[in-house]
Amino acid sequence: MTGCSVEHAMHLLGGRWRLLLVSYLIDGPKRFNELRRDMPGISQRMLTLDLRALEATGLIRRTVYPTTPVKVEYALTEDGMRLKKVVSVVQEFGLWLKQRDAA
Amino acid sequence: MTGCSVEHAMHLLGGRWRLLLVSYLIDGPKRFNELRRDMPGISQRMLTLDLRALEATGLIRRTVYPTTPVKVEYALTEDGMRLKKVVSVVQEFGLWLKQRDAA
Repeated sequence: MTGCSVEHAMHLLGGRWRLLLVSYLIDGPKRFNELRRDMPGISQRMLTLDLRALEATGLIRRTVYPTTPVKVEYALTEDGMRLKKVVSVVQEFGLWLKQRDAA
Repeated sequence: MTGCSVEHAMHLLGGRWRLLLVSYLIDGPKRFNELRRDMPGISQRMLTLDLRALEATGLIRRTVYPTTPVKVEYALTEDGMRLKKVVSVVQEFGLWLKQRDAA
């Protein structure tokens, strides 16, 4: 059950960009192009697919505003906000790893 | 810096199996075939590559015992033990996700 839950979570979050994407939404909703600027390494196609996967799992909400031009925003849902703790612990580990390797 | 640390960590841990692999070593050292039994979905080649990557980063230690036949064990290093918290938070999220989706 233990390993199984880790596997279940990593199946969703284990892509290179997904948790990073979530981390950029923690401070509030963002538009597609803002996310692309935050993550210059990701392709447009991959960002689209990752956003869709997280939307399909109910962790991200996509809102279309009927302005001209149409404005599309992505935000974490209440369920998605549960990832805050995961992001913060992974971030802490990444920071430690960077500092260790720089020393 | 924030996103950047998440990216750094996920570059190492983001594979489908790596964190799962770490989770199976938390309770103590294991042999290659024990790990294969823990993770029936992973191929022998992928397990080898993941073990090597984690060994190269100093998170896992490979010990060869000069018995006949030779016994090879994998264990988390002290640095690798830092992942305990990551595993536990990801596991908690995975468990929540499974329960939500089963409801």
